[in-house]
Amino acid sequence: MKASFEFIPAGTVTSPEGFSAGATYAGIKKGKDLDLGLLASEVPCVAAGLFTTNRIKAAPVVLCQQRLRSDRASAVVANSGCANACTGEQGLADAEEMARLAAGAIGVPPEDVLVASTGVIGQRLPMERLRAGMAQVMLSRNGGHRLARAIMTTDTVPKETAVRSEEGGFTIGGVAKGAGMIHPDLATFLCFLTTDAGVDLAFLKSALRQAADMSFNMVSIDGDTSTNDTVLVLANGLAGGEIISSGSQRAEIFQQALSELCLYLAKATARDGEGATKLVEVTVNGAQSVAEARAAARTVVSSPLVKTAIYGSDPNWGRVLAAVGRSGVEVVEAKIDLYLGKLCLLKAGRPQSFDREEAVKLLKEKEISIILDLNLGGGTATAWGCDLTEEYVKINSHYTT
Amino acid sequence: MKASFEFIPAGTVTSPEGFSAGATYAGIKKGKDLDLGLLASEVPCVAAGLFTTNRIKAAPVVLCQQRLRSDRASAVVANSGCANACTGEQGLADAEEMARLAAGAIGVPPEDVLVASTGVIGQRLPMERLRAGMAQVMLSRNGGHRLARAIMTTDTVPKETAVRSEEGGFTIGGVAKGAGMIHPDLATFLCFLTTDAGVDLAFLKSALRQAADMSFNMVSIDGDTSTNDTVLVLANGLAGGEIISSGSQRAEIFQQALSELCLYLAKATARDGEGATKLVEVTVNGAQSVAEARAAARTVVSSPLVKTAIYGSDPNWGRVLAAVGRSGVEVVEAKIDLYLGKLCLLKAGRPQSFDREEAVKLLKEKEISIILDLNLGGGTATAWGCDLTEEYVKINSHYTT
Repeated sequence: MKASFEFIPAGTVTSPEGFSAGATYAGIKKGKDLDLGLLASEVPCVAAGLFTTNRIKAAPVVLCQQRLRSDRASAVVANSGCANACTGEQGLADAEEMARLAAGAIGVPPEDVLVASTGVIGQRLPMERLRAGMAQVMLSRNGGHRLARAIMTTDTVPKETAVRSEEGGFTIGGVAKGAGMIHPDLATFLCFLTTDAGVDLAFLKSALRQAADMSFNMVSIDGDTSTNDTVLVLANGLAGGEIISSGSQRAEIFQQALSELCLYLAKATARDGEGATKLVEVTVNGAQSVAEARAAARTVVSSPLVKTAIYGSDPNWGRVLAAVGRSGVEVVEAKIDLYLGKLCLLKAGRPQSFDREEAVKLLKEKEISIILDLNLGGGTATAWGCDLTEEYVKINSHYTT
Repeated sequence: MKASFEFIPAGTVTSPEGFSAGATYAGIKKGKDLDLGLLASEVPCVAAGLFTTNRIKAAPVVLCQQRLRSDRASAVVANSGCANACTGEQGLADAEEMARLAAGAIGVPPEDVLVASTGVIGQRLPMERLRAGMAQVMLSRNGGHRLARAIMTTDTVPKETAVRSEEGGFTIGGVAKGAGMIHPDLATFLCFLTTDAGVDLAFLKSALRQAADMSFNMVSIDGDTSTNDTVLVLANGLAGGEIISSGSQRAEIFQQALSELCLYLAKATARDGEGATKLVEVTVNGAQSVAEARAAARTVVSSPLVKTAIYGSDPNWGRVLAAVGRSGVEVVEAKIDLYLGKLCLLKAGRPQSFDREEAVKLLKEKEISIILDLNLGGGTATAWGCDLTEEYVKINSHYTT
């Protein structure tokens, strides 16, 4: 199938019509990096969100869930350096004030502003700094790049892109952050998506869910899920044309474009996992169902022993079998095929004699592909993650200090 | 309650009457350490076992499960350096030959010999070396210490102990190995338990299950479960006296002694986790049920972010909340109390101002205690684990090479 869209070079969340963004250094995060950002649409948007499945939810998550009952939003304000989680009623009041400050700066009703925070759990937002910082944020049509930096914590690179469909007549943009506390569902994560397409709410929600299921929900860095996971999508309709709804002519193009954009951001997140040196892609074919394939792929990509072996470029494939065996998924040892890239390591449960040098060479590349065929049914899924290195431990043993 | 038993200094698996053991270096494991061991009883024993829940089961696990249908055994042969897992029918034949060789050396029927292996997955046992090695094993009453060393892989210390109950008139001994691929159920693990008590089979099985539930099944090192987990108990009855069965006078003493011995070995395993510098104990009180308390405690003790924070002596307690929040267990943020030892960090969901220096000092000790009270019900459980260090990554990135 010919792709009906293409990635825009240097695309970002403000690539779609009518969106602007900005960011500043407010002093919330240590260092001198941007830590407070704002995203705004010229006109109110149809909006939807996905949030952490963690039972401990940060104040901004609670606030977003309340506000999205209206299914509309005009702006998102976000900070890094403080998660505003485990902060009780004061935290909720702080999140509300953060939205109010942003609303004042842009000139929209406070209830149309969504809020996201990321950083250390259990500390109050430094409201004085936040107030002073908000006054300095300058919005611009090219401001998505600064917003992408403002939401970074242990990320080493900003994650942002945009896709343009000439056929569909719309653009979709996105920024994301996330490097640790990443695990389905939802990969720990802030992600803001924008589009100038006019999209029907029900379709927007289902399109977001479907895109996330194949991307953010298939990424694992360390098995920990966060209190702050938030994915927001805002559709402002400024590109004109008919409203895209389920079954409409452009619905498939929109779904495909959104899914690919989310996949791009998800893979960028896995590649930038804390301390990671390699992107790992695990595909499971032949499972009894898609759900079983997903569970198996996620378990293998999350296994610390698989991750450390990949880091060490050690073709210790038994760890992949041990991981799939504990995934809870139906497997029959004598039916399993295992490949490292195109190199067959196991066929119908029998270890194959393989060129060890070749395997080590494949494992030394920047992208590692592991393919399992369970040969039991038609279920297929792919999960992404990264290797586990000493650097992950270093980063996380002294994060608050 | 006064303890009705005591730990025997330098106790081991051959401390009970009528058991002997021995070990040799057969050349299965790299280096020059003992790698082939044998445990034997003078008389046939009532025997029971617990095995990995992994769907990929090593050949010796399959063989033990078959042989324990007879509920009796006289000996256990074990090797380190090769797991004999993912080795198909040849692996099963090798495990059977290993039992036959041991049976010949001791002079018992082959079907009375149980087999355990630990080490690299996906490689055949080097049978020539194993045959030559078996001829060198010398059994002795004090040989448990050598057996404890022969089953070590990345373990840094042998794990062995024994308890003696004068009141009960019996002794129980045990050896265990395990340092990585450790996660409930069953903590990845070989463990052989012996007793000279005469024990009814049904009671022996239930006593083992109960002891394991509070010990081996509450230990996590890295979340990976192995293909080879095996816990075996052999009761030879040589201490005399009435057979202990459910409800008999000494049943409670036996249960208590067995549970404490298993707990000792489980904690020794957690303390010796790959690369670990600290033993971590997580107690969850006030859960809606014991099952929920167990799930919450195990999730917290397994969290890589909690483990790295403990390694760095960083009182980043939000990670404990994030972990309990994703455990699937019912929690109400506004009810949670959190303690580090006796230091209160969170009370009814509110962060407490605590002495940071004191917290860091507590985190620098060798044993860390985290206590959560969910204040929802009567469910209580404790789990054990260790910190996550750069050394864990180093050990596991080059294990087969």
